[in-house]
Amino acid sequence: MIVVLKENPDPRQLENLMQWLKSLNLDVHVSSGSQQTVLGLVGDTTAVDIDLVRALDIVADVKRIQEPYKKANRRFHPLDSVIPVGCGIQVGGSHFQIIAGPCSIESSEQLCSIAQAVKASGATILRGGAFKPRTSPYSFQGMHEDGIKLLLEAKAATGMPVITEIMDISQLDLFDDIDIIQVGARNMQNFELLKCLGRTNKPILLKRGLANTYEELLMSAEYIMSRGNEQIILCERGIRTFETFTRNTLDISSVPVLKELSHLPVIVDPSHAAGIARLVPTLSMAAVAAGCNGLMIEVHNDPAHAKCDGPQSIRPEAFDALAKRVASLRALMTAQEA
Amino acid sequence: MIVVLKENPDPRQLENLMQWLKSLNLDVHVSSGSQQTVLGLVGDTTAVDIDLVRALDIVADVKRIQEPYKKANRRFHPLDSVIPVGCGIQVGGSHFQIIAGPCSIESSEQLCSIAQAVKASGATILRGGAFKPRTSPYSFQGMHEDGIKLLLEAKAATGMPVITEIMDISQLDLFDDIDIIQVGARNMQNFELLKCLGRTNKPILLKRGLANTYEELLMSAEYIMSRGNEQIILCERGIRTFETFTRNTLDISSVPVLKELSHLPVIVDPSHAAGIARLVPTLSMAAVAAGCNGLMIEVHNDPAHAKCDGPQSIRPEAFDALAKRVASLRALMTAQEA
Amino acid sequence: MIVVLKENPDPRQLENLMQWLKSLNLDVHVSSGSQQTVLGLVGDTTAVDIDLVRALDIVADVKRIQEPYKKANRRFHPLDSVIPVGCGIQVGGSHFQIIAGPCSIESSEQLCSIAQAVKASGATILRGGAFKPRTSPYSFQGMHEDGIKLLLEAKAATGMPVITEIMDISQLDLFDDIDIIQVGARNMQNFELLKCLGRTNKPILLKRGLANTYEELLMSAEYIMSRGNEQIILCERGIRTFETFTRNTLDISSVPVLKELSHLPVIVDPSHAAGIARLVPTLSMAAVAAGCNGLMIEVHNDPAHAKCDGPQSIRPEAFDALAKRVASLRALMTAQEA
Amino acid sequence: MIVVLKENPDPRQLENLMQWLKSLNLDVHVSSGSQQTVLGLVGDTTAVDIDLVRALDIVADVKRIQEPYKKANRRFHPLDSVIPVGCGIQVGGSHFQIIAGPCSIESSEQLCSIAQAVKASGATILRGGAFKPRTSPYSFQGMHEDGIKLLLEAKAATGMPVITEIMDISQLDLFDDIDIIQVGARNMQNFELLKCLGRTNKPILLKRGLANTYEELLMSAEYIMSRGNEQIILCERGIRTFETFTRNTLDISSVPVLKELSHLPVIVDPSHAAGIARLVPTLSMAAVAAGCNGLMIEVHNDPAHAKCDGPQSIRPEAFDALAKRVASLRALMTAQEA
Repeated sequence: MIVVLKENPDPRQLENLMQWLKSLNLDVHVSSGSQQTVLGLVGDTTAVDIDLVRALDIVADVKRIQEPYKKANRRFHPLDSVIPVGCGIQVGGSHFQIIAGPCSIESSEQLCSIAQAVKASGATILRGGAFKPRTSPYSFQGMHEDGIKLLLEAKAATGMPVITEIMDISQLDLFDDIDIIQVGARNMQNFELLKCLGRTNKPILLKRGLANTYEELLMSAEYIMSRGNEQIILCERGIRTFETFTRNTLDISSVPVLKELSHLPVIVDPSHAAGIARLVPTLSMAAVAAGCNGLMIEVHNDPAHAKCDGPQSIRPEAFDALAKRVASLRALMTAQEA
Repeated sequence: MIVVLKENPDPRQLENLMQWLKSLNLDVHVSSGSQQTVLGLVGDTTAVDIDLVRALDIVADVKRIQEPYKKANRRFHPLDSVIPVGCGIQVGGSHFQIIAGPCSIESSEQLCSIAQAVKASGATILRGGAFKPRTSPYSFQGMHEDGIKLLLEAKAATGMPVITEIMDISQLDLFDDIDIIQVGARNMQNFELLKCLGRTNKPILLKRGLANTYEELLMSAEYIMSRGNEQIILCERGIRTFETFTRNTLDISSVPVLKELSHLPVIVDPSHAAGIARLVPTLSMAAVAAGCNGLMIEVHNDPAHAKCDGPQSIRPEAFDALAKRVASLRALMTAQEA
Repeated sequence: MIVVLKENPDPRQLENLMQWLKSLNLDVHVSSGSQQTVLGLVGDTTAVDIDLVRALDIVADVKRIQEPYKKANRRFHPLDSVIPVGCGIQVGGSHFQIIAGPCSIESSEQLCSIAQAVKASGATILRGGAFKPRTSPYSFQGMHEDGIKLLLEAKAATGMPVITEIMDISQLDLFDDIDIIQVGARNMQNFELLKCLGRTNKPILLKRGLANTYEELLMSAEYIMSRGNEQIILCERGIRTFETFTRNTLDISSVPVLKELSHLPVIVDPSHAAGIARLVPTLSMAAVAAGCNGLMIEVHNDPAHAKCDGPQSIRPEAFDALAKRVASLRALMTAQEA
Repeated sequence: MIVVLKENPDPRQLENLMQWLKSLNLDVHVSSGSQQTVLGLVGDTTAVDIDLVRALDIVADVKRIQEPYKKANRRFHPLDSVIPVGCGIQVGGSHFQIIAGPCSIESSEQLCSIAQAVKASGATILRGGAFKPRTSPYSFQGMHEDGIKLLLEAKAATGMPVITEIMDISQLDLFDDIDIIQVGARNMQNFELLKCLGRTNKPILLKRGLANTYEELLMSAEYIMSRGNEQIILCERGIRTFETFTRNTLDISSVPVLKELSHLPVIVDPSHAAGIARLVPTLSMAAVAAGCNGLMIEVHNDPAHAKCDGPQSIRPEAFDALAKRVASLRALMTAQEA
């Protein structure tokens, strides 16, 4: 951490600052010029409250050099995290998983039919929304508890681990038999929810917020991890940009960068990023080529009558074709790495 | 609502669509050209799920013409809402209120000393954070229940109504004697929280999210209002842009536009927008000139030792000077309107 | 085009508007409801000045339905454009080209050494900057005319067509023997330059601006095409977002979307998008998987001493490895399409 | 400038770096920790090419501490620049000017009528566009040379200095008798144009680009100033954000921040920021309250038939009312400062 002092700092205040920094077990190196004095802090600065330092009268600016996250940081955990998510499935490292299923759970027939189809095509984890975050209070909000029950039935029927989104701490009891709990983009900085999930022992799929940086995503992962639960799967699902042709803009660079900064697995959700079904296969291939640890894809047997996000859902036949193309590309990449 | 059809739509599917739209009590007008057919839907389209229509096979695009919010819409409620917030204070219409106080509550002495100072300078509502949303799990998270108690003591001592932020539904019981409940920018689309607050009878100050549009803010207000609680105060607190000199970018246009679109009062928080104390007075004056219904300003007696957001807090003396300038400007504006 | 009228429009003004629209050879369909009247314009609306219509007293809003570009529009030119760029090389359709070379031309030795290396690895077009747009007036601005000469020497020596950036109309005479003229991101809306290039008969590589939409990019292509030169190659080079770890954010979705909207070839520049050399191979593979018509990659034999953009240049050995991986992926994709 | 080294830097490379930095007359202070070594460079780092340093093998990151601009920097020129723009009018310091006139020049009658009206209401500088940057090649592009002639006639008739936009170096000869040359937002980083204008002796009004930062704006001013012309007027005209209700988002904070960072005058253009005439008065008042040195406002006697940007032009009567309100607010502010 670098602390840039204002010109002619009060010597007593400077001395106080130096003492305080040393009390945090930091080494302080001073660079003094005619116009500017700069302090270089060396040591573990994770817990230094940067706002606190910036507020001091004698401080002009503070710049971090080390990342402010620790448990999510690859610097301190060089090896890839591999997270068992149930039914023998693992996420991370050299494993590649496809999560597929409908945006929202609508009926037993709908869910089972899709679940069997995607499983047959190669999907390994089943998704389905029971609690749906919708911009409008007048839109369908999901089947709630009944949706969870149908999802667990589909799990029993197919043997696939299941993932569904939580929207509030009060829903947690319903997630006892859910394998992976999803935190949606709009809740990425719902810090109370993150702390609560940090005290569970469930794998958490954490989606990046629509206007959040990599560092903010990793700090949200750190919230969960700091409470004890280190089973985090990161998910890129598109960010908001000025382009509105696609619903969001898939940030493909997030895949290699998050994998460089962190040991956590990175999954890509092209369905929400694009918001347009016909773009999903192309974006999926790009995400695989970028090295993601898996995909999360919305599949619906009747997109035109889906209760939610129909325009971005592909049909089972399209999913089947896509899964084959993904498998070939994965094989090519494995061969190239060898 | 305008529905643009794909070229050569299947006649039977078109007929089905027309029937369904009419069953929603909408009038449908058809414009057919050689290349394109467009349906104009006239009537109350608030409850039409735009995604559902967009997902239909024969539909190329859908564009809204009417706003998707109703209770928050000035079109249906031409007069300004005026919201009583306790202790005889009203927000909205021709009333102008200044909310002031520390970012976070730190001690009884700190809070009372600031509360008395800002009251003497003209503040009418006391703010103070007990639950603090912080990007890092290692930063100070607020005094929680103890903070609420201190805030209520300060209310008793000064006779000012008090406002503080809620971060999760589970905290609601602690807010029984709080006058205004604040929903922070990161929770603007925490829909479960919004629904829950919609069932209370407390005034809610709803902050605009960092990357959210006016319409999304009003849809979040609509979430609360649709559950029965119509006492909403909107708050502009800066949005995220590419400029990082200021912490966020105050969107001054939000004041006249939100007041045009909605009957709800609009408050401006220049402290969070700027993130730099010395900019707060200038931005406050600009916000008043833009016609806001009030300001929310962070004041701290010792910003350099504030536990949170010190750099953006002004001192009581600066607040006093600012309050005087605001009063003169308000007087000028009232005279100009007369 | 949809014209939404204000409530209770003046009948005479409405009649005037209808007459004027019909004089533009547009069919006008009227949808009248109790609250709202909407006009649907059917026909070629490309030349309707949307701002003009929006300014009318009786108009509340105008929404385009058809794209405002015509010559760049795939709707009117279903087949891919294939652009010969010299030396037998073609860009577009099923052709795939790699443009490679140094960010800026520094010396004859540097340029020739890199040119020969990239050609041996499979690059088919040589890039090199002679005029460099730099944010600071104190940074190296390129070798100008001397750089162009060196580039033409390298063309003669290697038989590769060459591309370099123009920054101002006044430089055009120097581009007589250059094969492809590049328009940089900051000049994407330098409309005078675009018009001027529209009167040449050179292939133009047009880079997307840092905060521009697909439609704006295609409108800039339309500027050139409307003057007679239809040899446009579009280039995605990353957009500005809130993420600053990468210099820009590669918008991978631009590849399938631009190819859907337009018949023009789409090239990806991962070097400028990332700004970090070690990300270039991964982003290149993602771009190829997304279906781009080629790549543009910065290669330098001594990035640490490059005069410009060293951090994003890869070494010839890394380029060679990347070119091999790209070739395998292209082969796989061709097989999948067959 | 802070240079963060990679772990275990090669000692010989480090020695080379140190020697080079010292040869630039910089003092280098070294902070070494167990994990990290940081160099603090003290002295004039304006001319250090930050990309060059960042490209070195042993360097992990570089952070600027001093601003990279010098001539535009208030640190080195503490007093406000005051720029005479002809006809006895001065911009900057305690002077306040209103620039008004039509978006584009359409006819002698139109221009003269508007010019006389705005002068009578208190405008001191006349604006009018002869070269119009339009997104579509099919939109009206301005009257060009004929427009310049009409503008000079209006100058002769009213005695007001005139401002109009240049779009390309080749147009410069036509600007001999123009008082202030405007550089539009899309040309803010047209570096060749900036350099060319730096060799003239005309006042330049430089508009901030739609997605550019304060620092980039000041670097573009620096481009002009570094060539000898220091008569720069900065202009905030709104930035692109996710909000599309307004055409752009007026960044009101730019006024106090640019005035803090630079000695150059700052003008606000609320017409382009809003894109909606009825918002112009409110945004103007906010800009004045924020301390701007002047306003630039589009006025049209018949906005509904303006050839360009009609929706954002106010009528002469509205301008008159606004000018009166601005004068009262200016008087209040002057009194508050005294």
